[in-house]
Amino acid sequence: MITPPSAPARAAAYERLEALAKPLGALGRLEDLAAWAAAVQGVCPPRPVDRIRAVILAGDHGVSREGVSAYPREVTAAMVRAFAAGRAGANCLARQHGVSLRVLDLGVDEDLADLPAEISKYNITCARPIHREDALTAAECAQALRAGRAIAETEIAAGADLLILGDMGIGNTTPAAALIAATFGLAADKVVGRGTGIDDERLTHKTWVVATALARMGDRAADPMARLAGLGSADLAAGVGFLLTAAGRGVPVLLDGIVSVAEVVIAEDLDPGVIGWCAAGHRSTEMAQQLALDKLGLIPLMDLGLRLGEGTGALAAVPVLRSAVLLLREMALLSDLAPVA
Amino acid sequence: MITPPSAPARAAAYERLEALAKPLGALGRLEDLAAWAAAVQGVCPPRPVDRIRAVILAGDHGVSREGVSAYPREVTAAMVRAFAAGRAGANCLARQHGVSLRVLDLGVDEDLADLPAEISKYNITCARPIHREDALTAAECAQALRAGRAIAETEIAAGADLLILGDMGIGNTTPAAALIAATFGLAADKVVGRGTGIDDERLTHKTWVVATALARMGDRAADPMARLAGLGSADLAAGVGFLLTAAGRGVPVLLDGIVSVAEVVIAEDLDPGVIGWCAAGHRSTEMAQQLALDKLGLIPLMDLGLRLGEGTGALAAVPVLRSAVLLLREMALLSDLAPVA
Repeated sequence: MITPPSAPARAAAYERLEALAKPLGALGRLEDLAAWAAAVQGVCPPRPVDRIRAVILAGDHGVSREGVSAYPREVTAAMVRAFAAGRAGANCLARQHGVSLRVLDLGVDEDLADLPAEISKYNITCARPIHREDALTAAECAQALRAGRAIAETEIAAGADLLILGDMGIGNTTPAAALIAATFGLAADKVVGRGTGIDDERLTHKTWVVATALARMGDRAADPMARLAGLGSADLAAGVGFLLTAAGRGVPVLLDGIVSVAEVVIAEDLDPGVIGWCAAGHRSTEMAQQLALDKLGLIPLMDLGLRLGEGTGALAAVPVLRSAVLLLREMALLSDLAPVA
Repeated sequence: MITPPSAPARAAAYERLEALAKPLGALGRLEDLAAWAAAVQGVCPPRPVDRIRAVILAGDHGVSREGVSAYPREVTAAMVRAFAAGRAGANCLARQHGVSLRVLDLGVDEDLADLPAEISKYNITCARPIHREDALTAAECAQALRAGRAIAETEIAAGADLLILGDMGIGNTTPAAALIAATFGLAADKVVGRGTGIDDERLTHKTWVVATALARMGDRAADPMARLAGLGSADLAAGVGFLLTAAGRGVPVLLDGIVSVAEVVIAEDLDPGVIGWCAAGHRSTEMAQQLALDKLGLIPLMDLGLRLGEGTGALAAVPVLRSAVLLLREMALLSDLAPVA
């Protein structure tokens, strides 16, 4: 059981919001967001959210050889190189908002020896195709989860007011959708989306892959660790470990799209209370992400039709979170205004 | 007729968006936004949107003596002082995003001689109650419109990549809703919202005020200048003038809530093409704002339930516009990536 964010700090935030020089409730969703920021920091008004650290967990997926994506498997490694070179979408947004960004290899199926050794230090195996066999053995899953915990510890040690978890991996919306379906008892056709933009034929095939994987797992899916090993991947397992450590250490997380939401769904099942440390950055175009956010009671801050992954939905929402905190800190109180007749 | 933004720059932007290292369309609404930025700048990729200038046009309204707001009329002047002191919500967001912010008195019904003379230099009369008589004479309306044009010229001369128009005025959602209703032929109960948060009784009364004003105007409302003088106010007329000059000079505007949207509705009627220079910052909680944006074909960037006015919805959306431009400028092209099998 994860310790929840501070209820007194949250209550103090709502009290201060009522006292600000504005109509009651006029800041809309920024009011709940500001109160969440106070609660996770344990102080009201909350400090500015200056030190934000994002990590992109990259991994390949067995299913990407099976026609579930519009792009070839090799794009995963190519994009890792683009992140390392600072040229991907997530890099642009991270620079814009002063966010530290690292990419890590959690099972990319290509030799990345040309990149800094730090990126591939976890030496993780790529996931097997989930409709044929378990993605990971129990030991591999535990190893990936530990790697994710270690990654979070490293980021927290570097000083983090907020963490962001991004993803890169051709085919990764397939295991993410399968994990969400298995957790909430949803049918494959309720969770499978178009990912990078697949056509109707591939969508039908992807739905079949997820349905087959769910049927293959059967009752074993009831256990969250078995579900993660069977339907997930190393990068997803690492994301789960990352979230467990972040929440356990009381460091808030801004969630991104379907992959990070699938990760939080499993993390919450493994250790209830993780969700209290998370806010939803954006609504992606993937149905499973929207369904899972609803189930978790999270309302995303942005809805821009983004479907790029990489943490970009969370990165785009960073200034909104900062706005909420600044407004709570800096706006005049009604009692500060010149006397009003 | 306003000269439209550059079609070749817009086409070049869509071409570049297709060539970026990302799935087609994966940036969602940021793609149209980036293309708009290229079009209004007349160049692809567009320059970073660094120099942003916001002006809050403050004014009082005759209807604010008639129970249409949850707040007393005197709050308008108190908030002008809060802006001047840098303590209002708009100031916080402007500081966060490096936006220049000025407040100007366009008919505030109080002596503001304690504030810098610059704020009240336009010496404008406060609007009369629109359900009883025309808010402004034709001469007053023309004067306010000229003031707004002069304000825009000043901001543009200071160097502006983007302009934002904010509002402050207890009662101002009443004339704004009336102008939108009269323009699109909508009934009062389709446009009247809760403004700062009025109860059901005041909502009924506010609806009656708007219905009475619309009936009083009758066919005179067909002419946009008569409509603006009859149902508007000095601050609204100044906003119309501001938008006409901005669009005429080819400087883009990020719209805010119901007041700036009412202003653009009239500006578009007076000189078609203004809308091409505008993007919608946010969806406010006011029905009339949402209806008017739909009619104008503008999709707001943010939907946070904000109803503070002051330009805060546009200010909150500033980083989204900047993101769109940066992604179009800085992301790798597919052809830059390592060769993919």
